Amino acid sequence: MPEPTAALVVIGDEILSGRTADLNINALARFLAGLGIDLKEVRIVSDDEGAIVAAVNGLRSSVTYLFTTGGIGPTHDDITAAAIAKAFGVPLVLDQRAVEILAARYPAAGLTEARLRMAMIPEGADLIANPVSAAPGFRIGNVHVMAGVPAIMRGMLQSIAPTLVPGRIVLSEAVPAEVGESFIAGRLGAIQADFPDVSIGSYPRMGERGFVTEIVLRSRDAERLAAATADVRALVETAIRERANPAPDPG
Amino acid sequence: MPEPTAALVVIGDEILSGRTADLNINALARFLAGLGIDLKEVRIVSDDEGAIVAAVNGLRSSVTYLFTTGGIGPTHDDITAAAIAKAFGVPLVLDQRAVEILAARYPAAGLTEARLRMAMIPEGADLIANPVSAAPGFRIGNVHVMAGVPAIMRGMLQSIAPTLVPGRIVLSEAVPAEVGESFIAGRLGAIQADFPDVSIGSYPRMGERGFVTEIVLRSRDAERLAAATADVRALVETAIRERANPAPDPG
Repeated sequence: MPEPTAALVVIGDEILSGRTADLNINALARFLAGLGIDLKEVRIVSDDEGAIVAAVNGLRSSVTYLFTTGGIGPTHDDITAAAIAKAFGVPLVLDQRAVEILAARYPAAGLTEARLRMAMIPEGADLIANPVSAAPGFRIGNVHVMAGVPAIMRGMLQSIAPTLVPGRIVLSEAVPAEVGESFIAGRLGAIQADFPDVSIGSYPRMGERGFVTEIVLRSRDAERLAAATADVRALVETAIRERANPAPDPG
Repeated sequence: MPEPTAALVVIGDEILSGRTADLNINALARFLAGLGIDLKEVRIVSDDEGAIVAAVNGLRSSVTYLFTTGGIGPTHDDITAAAIAKAFGVPLVLDQRAVEILAARYPAAGLTEARLRMAMIPEGADLIANPVSAAPGFRIGNVHVMAGVPAIMRGMLQSIAPTLVPGRIVLSEAVPAEVGESFIAGRLGAIQADFPDVSIGSYPRMGERGFVTEIVLRSRDAERLAAATADVRALVETAIRERANPAPDPG
């Protein structure tokens, strides 16, 4: 059985302008990893209806679950619900379930026109509970529409979690290597060729004494992961020994 | 004259798995903002040739400049150069300029097959200098291919900067509002309607005593920005006064 997959559309001019650093991508990636759902692609688009529709319709048919963050508040720049309705070709309607939630949230201040904007939901959608600030997200088809404020987004993910069909968890091992990756690249590629069912990534970073490498192995098969990790550990030990004792000149 | 635009393709399984939080999106966004170049879209894709080709070819014709980060090192999972060559329909060739740079970098250890992988560049590309670790990036057409390690990516951006045609800088003002955004949403929308040449964003966040809002105004026209900002400041003062002294019941 193929494992479930996902994609994310982040909606927000403030991310693209550099004013705000996104926090939701990593939070969603970790949430999905915990459910064994593979995140295949993320797109960040501006607060523009055409851009949102293109991203949502470009991704939703190719993954099990699509998520969006941002643009579902009460202000003029919150256009996600209208864009999703357009993407699905359905009308945007005042949702009575959402009206009741908002009426309970604002008993004194009342349901102003601005607040009722947050109850405008594409026809046929289910609501996603917001345990932080009440105003709900919604799901239509396989598309889950969430708030952009990180604490609210995370709260909505907890509401969504029981509705997702999990996959088998991807297990991972990390092997630190106190050598630059060019010292191990050839032999690491050979191990990758031996283990097509294990994904082996090599991540350089600057250490205190030059570049070091972290090798990350990922697989759904624990035995294969262990075998590949043992090979990588042996390779790293060999590479470090070679660097300490270079081979004599063959001439 | 239309302003220059840009898009970014982030290549990296480690971002999609949640293992690593991306730092390059915000760094590039701020770099481009400083040059008056509008970042229109970001896509994060896996270390997969088909995914890279699709993202690059899906974006490069619609923007002035396309950037990519990640996947140009010496290991088997570094497949960006080959994917870009495929996207442009040109062969991947051993670039003698890159060979010389790498030979100078590794005088003792030598140019192993793994290191020479970093000199395999799409035919017709120009090199992008890497002031941190020598191995170059490259530019082909409007596509700028950079390393994923943040310090190296930032170094390459400094190399690229003089080659980009800047636009007019987008000026911005931020107005803090100690009220939730639903208290100002309607009137804020009216100001946005008065100033179509100013982009007005409303960003809620949780403060110590409930939700507060930051209103961010952005425009290339300083006078219009100032006028819209004055209107927003007056609106916020009114909203705070109203909350302190609610209107008497009209009945």
